[in-house]
Amino acid sequence: MKRTLGTCYYPEHWPEEIWAEDAARMKAAGLTWIRIGEFSWSKLEPTPGDLHWDWLDRAIEALGAQGLRVVLGTPTATPPRWMAERHPDMFAVTAEGQPRGFGSRRHYCFSHKGYFAESQRITRLMAERYGANPHVAAWQTDNEYGCHDTVISYSDAAQTAFRAWLAEQFDGEIDALNEAWGNMFWSMEYRSFDEIGLPNLTVTEPNPAHVLAFRRFSSDQVVAFNRAQVEIIKAHSTAPISHNYMGRITDFDHFKLGEDLEIATWDSYPLGFLEDRVGASPEEQRAYARQGDPDFQALHHDLYRAVGRGRWWVMEQQPGPVNWAPYNPAPLPGMVRLWTWEAFAHGAEAVCYFRWRQAPFAQEQMHAGLLRPDSQDAPAMQEAMDVAAELGAAADVQPAQAPVAILFDYDADWAWSTQPHGAGLSYFQLILEHYKALRRAGQTIDILPPETRDFTGYKMILAPGMMHLPEPLKEALARSEAEVLYGPRSGARDGHFSIPTSPLPPALPGLDVTVARVESLRPDMPIALKGGGAARGYLEELEGTAEVVFETSEGAAVALRAGRQTYCGGWLDAEGLDRLIATVAQAAGLELRQMPEGVRTRRTATEVFWFNHSAEPVETEVGLLPPAGVKRIAL
Amino acid sequence: MKRTLGTCYYPEHWPEEIWAEDAARMKAAGLTWIRIGEFSWSKLEPTPGDLHWDWLDRAIEALGAQGLRVVLGTPTATPPRWMAERHPDMFAVTAEGQPRGFGSRRHYCFSHKGYFAESQRITRLMAERYGANPHVAAWQTDNEYGCHDTVISYSDAAQTAFRAWLAEQFDGEIDALNEAWGNMFWSMEYRSFDEIGLPNLTVTEPNPAHVLAFRRFSSDQVVAFNRAQVEIIKAHSTAPISHNYMGRITDFDHFKLGEDLEIATWDSYPLGFLEDRVGASPEEQRAYARQGDPDFQALHHDLYRAVGRGRWWVMEQQPGPVNWAPYNPAPLPGMVRLWTWEAFAHGAEAVCYFRWRQAPFAQEQMHAGLLRPDSQDAPAMQEAMDVAAELGAAADVQPAQAPVAILFDYDADWAWSTQPHGAGLSYFQLILEHYKALRRAGQTIDILPPETRDFTGYKMILAPGMMHLPEPLKEALARSEAEVLYGPRSGARDGHFSIPTSPLPPALPGLDVTVARVESLRPDMPIALKGGGAARGYLEELEGTAEVVFETSEGAAVALRAGRQTYCGGWLDAEGLDRLIATVAQAAGLELRQMPEGVRTRRTATEVFWFNHSAEPVETEVGLLPPAGVKRIAL
Amino acid sequence: MKRTLGTCYYPEHWPEEIWAEDAARMKAAGLTWIRIGEFSWSKLEPTPGDLHWDWLDRAIEALGAQGLRVVLGTPTATPPRWMAERHPDMFAVTAEGQPRGFGSRRHYCFSHKGYFAESQRITRLMAERYGANPHVAAWQTDNEYGCHDTVISYSDAAQTAFRAWLAEQFDGEIDALNEAWGNMFWSMEYRSFDEIGLPNLTVTEPNPAHVLAFRRFSSDQVVAFNRAQVEIIKAHSTAPISHNYMGRITDFDHFKLGEDLEIATWDSYPLGFLEDRVGASPEEQRAYARQGDPDFQALHHDLYRAVGRGRWWVMEQQPGPVNWAPYNPAPLPGMVRLWTWEAFAHGAEAVCYFRWRQAPFAQEQMHAGLLRPDSQDAPAMQEAMDVAAELGAAADVQPAQAPVAILFDYDADWAWSTQPHGAGLSYFQLILEHYKALRRAGQTIDILPPETRDFTGYKMILAPGMMHLPEPLKEALARSEAEVLYGPRSGARDGHFSIPTSPLPPALPGLDVTVARVESLRPDMPIALKGGGAARGYLEELEGTAEVVFETSEGAAVALRAGRQTYCGGWLDAEGLDRLIATVAQAAGLELRQMPEGVRTRRTATEVFWFNHSAEPVETEVGLLPPAGVKRIAL
Repeated sequence: MKRTLGTCYYPEHWPEEIWAEDAARMKAAGLTWIRIGEFSWSKLEPTPGDLHWDWLDRAIEALGAQGLRVVLGTPTATPPRWMAERHPDMFAVTAEGQPRGFGSRRHYCFSHKGYFAESQRITRLMAERYGANPHVAAWQTDNEYGCHDTVISYSDAAQTAFRAWLAEQFDGEIDALNEAWGNMFWSMEYRSFDEIGLPNLTVTEPNPAHVLAFRRFSSDQVVAFNRAQVEIIKAHSTAPISHNYMGRITDFDHFKLGEDLEIATWDSYPLGFLEDRVGASPEEQRAYARQGDPDFQALHHDLYRAVGRGRWWVMEQQPGPVNWAPYNPAPLPGMVRLWTWEAFAHGAEAVCYFRWRQAPFAQEQMHAGLLRPDSQDAPAMQEAMDVAAELGAAADVQPAQAPVAILFDYDADWAWSTQPHGAGLSYFQLILEHYKALRRAGQTIDILPPETRDFTGYKMILAPGMMHLPEPLKEALARSEAEVLYGPRSGARDGHFSIPTSPLPPALPGLDVTVARVESLRPDMPIALKGGGAARGYLEELEGTAEVVFETSEGAAVALRAGRQTYCGGWLDAEGLDRLIATVAQAAGLELRQMPEGVRTRRTATEVFWFNHSAEPVETEVGLLPPAGVKRIAL
Repeated sequence: MKRTLGTCYYPEHWPEEIWAEDAARMKAAGLTWIRIGEFSWSKLEPTPGDLHWDWLDRAIEALGAQGLRVVLGTPTATPPRWMAERHPDMFAVTAEGQPRGFGSRRHYCFSHKGYFAESQRITRLMAERYGANPHVAAWQTDNEYGCHDTVISYSDAAQTAFRAWLAEQFDGEIDALNEAWGNMFWSMEYRSFDEIGLPNLTVTEPNPAHVLAFRRFSSDQVVAFNRAQVEIIKAHSTAPISHNYMGRITDFDHFKLGEDLEIATWDSYPLGFLEDRVGASPEEQRAYARQGDPDFQALHHDLYRAVGRGRWWVMEQQPGPVNWAPYNPAPLPGMVRLWTWEAFAHGAEAVCYFRWRQAPFAQEQMHAGLLRPDSQDAPAMQEAMDVAAELGAAADVQPAQAPVAILFDYDADWAWSTQPHGAGLSYFQLILEHYKALRRAGQTIDILPPETRDFTGYKMILAPGMMHLPEPLKEALARSEAEVLYGPRSGARDGHFSIPTSPLPPALPGLDVTVARVESLRPDMPIALKGGGAARGYLEELEGTAEVVFETSEGAAVALRAGRQTYCGGWLDAEGLDRLIATVAQAAGLELRQMPEGVRTRRTATEVFWFNHSAEPVETEVGLLPPAGVKRIAL
Repeated sequence: MKRTLGTCYYPEHWPEEIWAEDAARMKAAGLTWIRIGEFSWSKLEPTPGDLHWDWLDRAIEALGAQGLRVVLGTPTATPPRWMAERHPDMFAVTAEGQPRGFGSRRHYCFSHKGYFAESQRITRLMAERYGANPHVAAWQTDNEYGCHDTVISYSDAAQTAFRAWLAEQFDGEIDALNEAWGNMFWSMEYRSFDEIGLPNLTVTEPNPAHVLAFRRFSSDQVVAFNRAQVEIIKAHSTAPISHNYMGRITDFDHFKLGEDLEIATWDSYPLGFLEDRVGASPEEQRAYARQGDPDFQALHHDLYRAVGRGRWWVMEQQPGPVNWAPYNPAPLPGMVRLWTWEAFAHGAEAVCYFRWRQAPFAQEQMHAGLLRPDSQDAPAMQEAMDVAAELGAAADVQPAQAPVAILFDYDADWAWSTQPHGAGLSYFQLILEHYKALRRAGQTIDILPPETRDFTGYKMILAPGMMHLPEPLKEALARSEAEVLYGPRSGARDGHFSIPTSPLPPALPGLDVTVARVESLRPDMPIALKGGGAARGYLEELEGTAEVVFETSEGAAVALRAGRQTYCGGWLDAEGLDRLIATVAQAAGLELRQMPEGVRTRRTATEVFWFNHSAEPVETEVGLLPPAGVKRIAL
């Protein structure tokens, strides 16, 4: 297939006179896709019922006239001001009980029925008008669900919906809920579903079962909201439907939502993320300030390849300094090209730069684009054009199944955050650290959804921290041909956040190991491992007859192994994790390749991509890689 | 007397089929006391007025059948969900004006009359049913008053009650209040008590006199709430009544509440406390992460011995990792035994482990018990059984009055927090630091309530930081045979939080010293003392004719002394405090014994207990003490 | 003219019997001015309409009898408790929507019409009674507008007023507002001014144009509130009217408010400021803990000289430890004298110590005065008397225009805080750092309002960070004879917070430089400059034909220069700024004098004042300066 480039464009921000010229420049730059429309509701419907499609007709036409392909976004992330008057209680509500009002974006509660209907109405109108438009070649629903912490809402609407959701979960049996949640613990029993409140504003922490159920409910509300739009669009258009997920947002289940989409896309802001959500040390933040974390984007690429069942894009690619991180540096020259090629190496169908031209007004006026506000080329433009030329000149990327997989489970992330046990422990961070260790060892990785049961073709599968392990998954993993690495906390809870007791976790078929006790540790109290590395922050006391493969310097078991299954009861530091993964990978027959600092690879069916994320030239086995260097080596 | 062990048990959490076996195992483990019932309201009264005592009858019977003695708790810390419907405004309100609702525990405002009546009703029903039960050998009111910051409530109910409380304090004379508080200062004068609000949500800080009065009122509300339960129980039972206080909770006056009890008990979680409320440095937190602070528990033991007028227990003893601290490590092997013996050495009648079996559900599922969730013995079980065996084999502990006393004044803690003057200064911390210095010098200590006037038998009395010193106390101390150490801030305020002006503080009989000026200092600005050590954070400029016994390296007086009284005007660091206390203790004729790091002693009438709180073996004058070692040396 | 001393006195706090003695001691101490009345509303009008002037009559008479001159304050900063009953919605409202209630001070919203009328009523009554009083020689409106963050209020009253203010700004054309603010960006368009809310409680950040407009509106409300009082007083009195501004409060435009006053005064608390608002490093805070920052007060002196158009005072001078900073040390002996003389050197007409006698009650009981609470002299008294004696003995200070000026623009401070781009970047801090660099180079400085167009007499003018540069100002600066230093961010926005695009900023006449791109940087990522120093936190990429005078070590332009204009695109560290300012100053023909650490000078028409702010004696070109030393050297 042909990998393509694109950009995000806001015709409503610019005089109509320059649309044609913009389109011609986009074409000349080698772009294919132009996403538009997703924040334009007040231009489309300035007053309720008064629809203004003409400008959008002409904008699409101007783009189409250049052969550009439009991704059309439903504008539901930014309901106009009049919506707040029609639905004064449409806003999400914070944990402190404060409505989150009009004046920016994403100002709606997913559980609000009135707004839900409005979102369907505008989607229907848009789909009716553009469903058959030849230039509209793809759709996007809404924009960045969950951004700005907008999944969870403590509104009255959410409470009503949560009660109904729970009643359905428990077949209307309140005693079943009381039993499953252990509500007798502090006399928290309910007599009916109508007595159940939201788990905020309690004196001390609420029941974790209550919290986790609310997290699952909240995720389901997003999925339902999105599904309603998808169904409407599908009734009028055959173009594929996408949504642009945002980095490290785990508040809803991207896999579940993705089941309704043809294409998963995500918004990649490597420098903003490094400051804001990678969890890097100050030293790493300094070293990679202009390049971004060398693994964070790749992890998301692999994640969204899974979410999209193979079809995925980067819908928004950072092209220069952004406006929203604590500090907003400019990328190292070459990084825009590197980021783009890295996405293609991981299988992206398209990479779109956000945005075409830097807006001189409003919230994102400090967010760079391909063009400066004065319409001159910004530095990213040349790098985008370079990639366009390279795409035309080189053979296509040939994706292939990776030999290594990591199971990624949104539910586990909610479970960890519901009860981290030790300050700062996070499931996403655990996954990222395992992913980094694999990449430091030169591995190419697939991310898999937790519902996966067929593991054919994988040599090694990691399922750390998946707190609820359904029995069929345990069995499928035990049956698979792969080496499987569990722990810490894998299987630590049942489906309603209780500790299984007969037997205690993890209760793995074919691996006799029991978590006898759990402790969390101050970060300054590493527990040294025999042979190097340490457990940090979290450590389980393990019992069982399986072979001890890792132990503390004092001889306590840290990892046990039987057959092809290994369970590790500690949160290991980088050195420990490198050793553990090497042990399991060697058993799996994987070839390990120690990467120099900042260098990463990705293997496809036909070649190996090499990327230098560091700011210095690095000598590698395939030669010298300059800063931001990209190299393709045929197999 | 016979020192005994016990545990906290929740029959309502477990199938009735295993109660008898649980009871048999408790008996076999050497336990005597079983506390039950304190969170069971929703099981006792699932619907208003529909009482279900049968299960509790049978649970008590099952325990009693093994000869176990029940401590029965009133369930008022966890009103059921229906209570919130009957009394929608029963919740405490935060300083920000937010009600603290249903879903965890302690969700009530002490000033709410409706809930107050409900708490009396359920207490009366319980007392009527079990007052004469032969197995109910003690009572507990409610659970951990003040835990989760629940004493202070900014509710309407509190405002109404506060106004009435003030009117009583000032005999209905609003001008007296205006005068006492200095309300003319910023035109804050009231025309009637009904104009007085609660001291929250002001633009800048409210009048400290207003804040302190509200703190005193809030404490009195707890005392009244408890007293109502005590009076009802006493009408039906002759068994002693207790309450389980929580560590470092100073929001109500434990002495005043204790006057209504026969037995004071407290809940001792050494590892949780170290992370959460000791105020230790990161180095100390690391060194003692598995042992807890070597003095924090001892201080509370001595405090509750005073609160209980000699009769006190540990009602909840940490047996393994807890769930609620930022980090929750496992105890060093042997510490559960050490903690238990330390409590006995300080005179505890009983030590009960919390809890019998780790609950696999709800908020405390990560809190260890004597049993694991799968009913296997957890590590603490063996240590408990060891203590039980040792208790049977050894002579009883013979308590004796200590030669050294510290006055502890809850009102002073409120005064310091009302106006710390320097960031982070706290009365409790000041007392803890003095207590630690005494323990480093090998002293055995009594804590005394501020109402003490008879100091017979004490050689040395410390009254640091007691901001309001009533004249009779000053006189009693001046008359006593003991060396008395005052300051900093002793006597700094009158009874309504004004600075006494004629003369200025501290105005001590027989000790001519005047605090001419006060300054607070950045923590990084130690003021060196001649001879070693430094003042840190807080320093007074002292005038007077008394002998200067400590001075800064620049010659400013820091401590003055006349007769048997010493006043120190600085917050001294450990070295300074060690020297100051040595000076006063030598004058008092006390024998000082420099303790090795982590080693502490406690002297009774007949022996000296030695405890090694460090994780290393330590050589002492009584031989090598292993980590967590306990040694009894006869006098 | 005769420079004079004074103090702040609260006769209502003390028994009437001691007023006469107090007045006599004031006179004997050499004081001239006594400010009274500003918090006394509840004494003047204990109940609505029941006026009690008699005590104030007698207090003024007691002071006047000693020849003391009264500054009479309107009491509107502390409306009595009954006011809250008359106007329950009179309070300012926090960004979180919480009213800021009664119980301290400044508890009113500037936009509340009811309270506005009350403030006029009491001002009128006071002006009528004392407008002709021979002892009332000056007036003060209210007290410290803006203190405790009280300018900005999210009340309903503010919303109503803001809509009207906006309608006036945009001539009632809502589309003009939508266009100017770029409201189409996220469908934020309004259909009428009545749809506009306040920029709080949005999901993510509101439109910066919206925020900046609200900041401007909020400032205008303060100006209007003050103007109403001024007009009333002027109708009854010829005495000059002042207001006491507070240090580093920039929430309203002091210049605009000052246009209505005869005298600008400010409240100088060097030690409190150092802890609280200077932004000094921990090392500087430690080194200057007892002296205060060596430049912070001087900057304010120069600022208020401009605000008062030459006529300015220190209305409240710190005399000892204060009560409100995180830490409250005592001043180094001599500093009270130094602070006083420094104010005179900068042209103050009077310096008044706050307060006469330390109050033993209420919020400020830990705030030192000239007298202790027991009426003994506090240490500051002798220093004040020394200054009084010196004033009598020496020649008067002869102010003169400085050769160097800094433009200070409140609007720019709001713009930076609306969109700092990098965490922690602040316009005030930028100005302070430029001011410090000038002072380290021995310069004497004027602060100028942004409306200045005539720069006659200045050799060097600094306009860093002034985000909106009106064209007439650019032209006036370009025409001036002075060297002008711009940047970073000078001219970066138009009048409604959009980036000018044709051309891009700064668009300076006669200096071809374009800000092509902007980045903010982690503080631990300094960008080294060729020749020494670094850019930190913020750096622009500059284009243009002007001469590069500063560049990074990698050769990127940091400062460009043409004619007498220089633009610097980076936030420079101290070394870089010293070098940049030296470069420009040399071009301006200024004589640079490198000051020893802690030493500062101020040149008048006839002499140079030397001040040693350090705690050590310092050798200077005019001889040894002791700690806190002051030296006057005739030219």
